Amino acid sequence: MPTNRISSLFNIKYPIVQGGMIWCSGWELASAVSNAGGLGLIGSGSMYPHILKEHIKKCKAATYKPFGVNVPLLYPRTDELMDIIVGEGVKIVFTSAGNPKKYTSFLKNHGIVVAHVIANKKFALKAAEAGVDAIVAEGFEAGGHNGFEETTTMVLTPMIRKITDIPLISAGGIGSGQAILAAMALGADGVQIGSRFAASLEASGHINFKQSIVDAGDGDTKLTLKRLVPVRLIKNDFLREVESAEYAGATKEELLELLGRGRAKKGMFEGDLIKGELEIGQVSGMIDKILPVSEIIHNLILEFHEAAKRIKENTVWIS
Amino acid sequence: MPTNRISSLFNIKYPIVQGGMIWCSGWELASAVSNAGGLGLIGSGSMYPHILKEHIKKCKAATYKPFGVNVPLLYPRTDELMDIIVGEGVKIVFTSAGNPKKYTSFLKNHGIVVAHVIANKKFALKAAEAGVDAIVAEGFEAGGHNGFEETTTMVLTPMIRKITDIPLISAGGIGSGQAILAAMALGADGVQIGSRFAASLEASGHINFKQSIVDAGDGDTKLTLKRLVPVRLIKNDFLREVESAEYAGATKEELLELLGRGRAKKGMFEGDLIKGELEIGQVSGMIDKILPVSEIIHNLILEFHEAAKRIKENTVWIS
Repeated sequence: MPTNRISSLFNIKYPIVQGGMIWCSGWELASAVSNAGGLGLIGSGSMYPHILKEHIKKCKAATYKPFGVNVPLLYPRTDELMDIIVGEGVKIVFTSAGNPKKYTSFLKNHGIVVAHVIANKKFALKAAEAGVDAIVAEGFEAGGHNGFEETTTMVLTPMIRKITDIPLISAGGIGSGQAILAAMALGADGVQIGSRFAASLEASGHINFKQSIVDAGDGDTKLTLKRLVPVRLIKNDFLREVESAEYAGATKEELLELLGRGRAKKGMFEGDLIKGELEIGQVSGMIDKILPVSEIIHNLILEFHEAAKRIKENTVWIS
Repeated sequence: MPTNRISSLFNIKYPIVQGGMIWCSGWELASAVSNAGGLGLIGSGSMYPHILKEHIKKCKAATYKPFGVNVPLLYPRTDELMDIIVGEGVKIVFTSAGNPKKYTSFLKNHGIVVAHVIANKKFALKAAEAGVDAIVAEGFEAGGHNGFEETTTMVLTPMIRKITDIPLISAGGIGSGQAILAAMALGADGVQIGSRFAASLEASGHINFKQSIVDAGDGDTKLTLKRLVPVRLIKNDFLREVESAEYAGATKEELLELLGRGRAKKGMFEGDLIKGELEIGQVSGMIDKILPVSEIIHNLILEFHEAAKRIKENTVWIS
């Protein structure tokens, strides 16, 4: 095997991580990605502890390849999730949306490889200090929760590369082989891809949600809730409702209540495109078909090859 | 000369365009960039017609290489500017912030090469229809005026590449050779760079403004005035004043008046970092020194080489 720091770290074929996504990345998606040579992640953010346990067991049965679990650190039952992860012998954990200090050493003491998702320099340095094995730098264009700085992948990736030597995974706006090559040009060792995998056959989201990813075009997503927890959503009635409330001066508690009414489940899992919360990245504007994971990975590699070839042939101007 | 569609179109050595920037890109910057092998643009957005005429004359005296003029189409005296451009025999015009239909055929009838700046698919198609010779796709991370869609360079460049074969210049977030390579991986033929050149010795901005670009870090710029004309600024008292007014429900006219008080000149040209408007891109967070243009171009090419070499050596994993 040729060496790549991310491939080596996770013992995978391609340095392509499937981002953990609530309501979308269960065992079926994670195992499919891992079987295709990437790193599949079970997204535990929408799972009760016993549900996570079930997904891990099923994932282990579905693949011999490495897979991991993503744990957003903003939910109340994180301790329980971590105990299940350790108990089930999961070897890779991606933490996000919280302080990396809290769980990194706990996980590493159990022999688990840890990556942490950040959106600015401050948290990249905190992650490095906490001793993570890899950093995911997620840009403004990414779906779901996002940073307050609004720094895009084009700027964030080299900015983080500049301040740390830790293996770096670029995320946000990446849904093609061309974008993988671009991320590597910017200094990333690997990439994390969400939206493209959310619109796969194996994703657990509702077919309506998958179709809405395909239908989304230019400017159809928006980073909203900037004063609370910035999150990128498809523009729909729910987003407009949230923005009206925010604009009218709703308190943090009122906004949280509005969000708390199972709207993410309603949108992404039950397929209510009007009243549901639909988390997806800007790159949805480039996704035009629901595909099986194996075909997605195949295309990514093919496009990467083509882009690398084109670059080699067309950059003689620099010599 | 090896062929590159942007280099060939403008008859320049490197497919690197220096973006037209109000109060920053006069004849001194434009001629320095052209002399160093890129394409320098005089930014006419902050110039009275007779001032533009003077800058064009001085630029012609300072370089034998091709240079151009950028004309934002949102100002009232555009017709006069265009007449001066034609009268002075300028060969290249970049139009922005308006409808490409209005001037493209006029300019092309005078033998002028025309590029138009867009931030979404709709205007890219309009520009193609108008018959422009090149399209500049400018992402959310760019400084100054920006699109309503907030699409980042990582997503916008391949999105525009997909719908048109016209030579494509990627802009927004590009201030290094790594980023040039990334833009090319995404399908661009060339790049437009603003912020990095605004912090050059030859830029006509105030030294205080140049220093504020160097000082700006992670998250220090913001796309604001989203309901009027989105513009990316350094976060300062002026930005907070504008946002307070907008938040308090100021009318479009009131906001325009606030902006109209020469605040851009005050900030960028006179160096008032508190009450002035400071237009700059996110990539300012990566700029740590004011440099002469020749050194900036030299570094860009060096970094491009290094990144291309690194890519070649480290992407064997795909084979």
